[in-house]
Amino acid sequence: MRTEGLSINLATVRRQWGLREAVEACARHGIGAIDPWRDQVAAAGLDEAVRIVKGSGMRLTGYCRGGMFPAADAAGRAAACDDNRRAIDEAAALGADCLVLVVGGLPPGSRDLSAARDMVVEGIGQVLDHARAEKMPLAIEPLHPMYAADRACVNTLGQALDICDQLGDGVGVAIDTYHVWWDPELEAQIARAGAGGRILAHHVCDWLVPTRDLLLDRGMMGDGVIDFPLIRRWIEAAGYRGPQEVEIFSAADWWTRPGDEVLATCIERYNKVC
Amino acid sequence: MRTEGLSINLATVRRQWGLREAVEACARHGIGAIDPWRDQVAAAGLDEAVRIVKGSGMRLTGYCRGGMFPAADAAGRAAACDDNRRAIDEAAALGADCLVLVVGGLPPGSRDLSAARDMVVEGIGQVLDHARAEKMPLAIEPLHPMYAADRACVNTLGQALDICDQLGDGVGVAIDTYHVWWDPELEAQIARAGAGGRILAHHVCDWLVPTRDLLLDRGMMGDGVIDFPLIRRWIEAAGYRGPQEVEIFSAADWWTRPGDEVLATCIERYNKVC
Repeated sequence: MRTEGLSINLATVRRQWGLREAVEACARHGIGAIDPWRDQVAAAGLDEAVRIVKGSGMRLTGYCRGGMFPAADAAGRAAACDDNRRAIDEAAALGADCLVLVVGGLPPGSRDLSAARDMVVEGIGQVLDHARAEKMPLAIEPLHPMYAADRACVNTLGQALDICDQLGDGVGVAIDTYHVWWDPELEAQIARAGAGGRILAHHVCDWLVPTRDLLLDRGMMGDGVIDFPLIRRWIEAAGYRGPQEVEIFSAADWWTRPGDEVLATCIERYNKVC
Repeated sequence: MRTEGLSINLATVRRQWGLREAVEACARHGIGAIDPWRDQVAAAGLDEAVRIVKGSGMRLTGYCRGGMFPAADAAGRAAACDDNRRAIDEAAALGADCLVLVVGGLPPGSRDLSAARDMVVEGIGQVLDHARAEKMPLAIEPLHPMYAADRACVNTLGQALDICDQLGDGVGVAIDTYHVWWDPELEAQIARAGAGGRILAHHVCDWLVPTRDLLLDRGMMGDGVIDFPLIRRWIEAAGYRGPQEVEIFSAADWWTRPGDEVLATCIERYNKVC
């Protein structure tokens, strides 16, 4: 079965494998692209991670993740920016296509969503020169509104694109079906993203009915209600032809299965459903 | 403490009390407005429910609920419209301010969100003449995007207002903080709703961090992250001065407490937080 155009976000097999094992397994299945997470890279050590990745010849469709900009005080926000600069350096060393940003939610104790959103724009703005110098595009990932409080206060593609318009070059969006499938403005905002050259990544993951956990009950493509071909058509019509990256957090199901079964299923569903 | 301007959606005490007990308890606490559910009215019998409600002198800030329009076939959609006409009749008999609509999600087996949304517009359109004849306003309640698949495919205030614009008189919106608090367009869309005379109800309920269940872990005002005074200011600036209706689904917390404690807490938080 076809594996061209398929990428595996390594969160999908994070319980099964470390970085080296995951990369070797993807190669074994004929998969040519991955997106590793910072904790996976840190566990291997950055230098070793670079050797693993470069040695594999894999494309990195992204590096997960920067972001988490809002904080209760200026020192916290400065520390977040410093951490994002390090993430940019790591992404550049690894040769990733982009650094994915999960922007962060409300600071502890805060109910000021508007202020948190301003902190996100300010934070990205403060690290953007560094990202441009490293030629590392920043991909804002709008997260589902159910994460507005604790993970990401950028919750629609339109909102992410407004931030891109404000900040200029070097920033774009990662479009994850799980987070955006419900949005009545989705088709129009994908077209807008394409027209602006802002689409940096396309993640796929299904919405299960019922969803039993807000974070860790995401679905394999085909097991839920998302119309993947439709969204892919909109994305390709907007000019993006890059890989579809499978990113599934699934504590009770896919994380409990053998990693090879998970990868084989990703390939099968990518061919049948996406 | 002040109870003027406070309404209790009777789902908030559904495990504790039937309709008569709930109405008596609200009266005991000095609360002058409620919003009963159809199953509560059915359990009492409609005629008896009308006697209970009219005898209490309570205002009904709404009647919950109509909706659930999408269905797999034409017969199912026709049955949904018939059921909505009955709900309109009940709401009129009870003297409710409006019939709240939870519009429904995807029909079983469907991934066609756009078709489901079209079915909602068509369904409301088919019962609207009856609602107008009964002088019963229909209040579309946009539900949080996490319910798009299984409860309501109208997920933003802007989307609900687009439907109102399409359908004309006799339809408006119920604005529930729990469902809309995250929306970057909220302030603008509330202003739009007010300018169009579309605000029919204002529900209050908090977003808890963490939220442990997608449906039944909603929070008492003050226990979560929503800025109630801010949203109320936007709503009043839009010209709506009607009651704030407390609607909390809370299987593991508020539904397990004595109903009098729940009502006393609603009053306290209404005064302190809203």
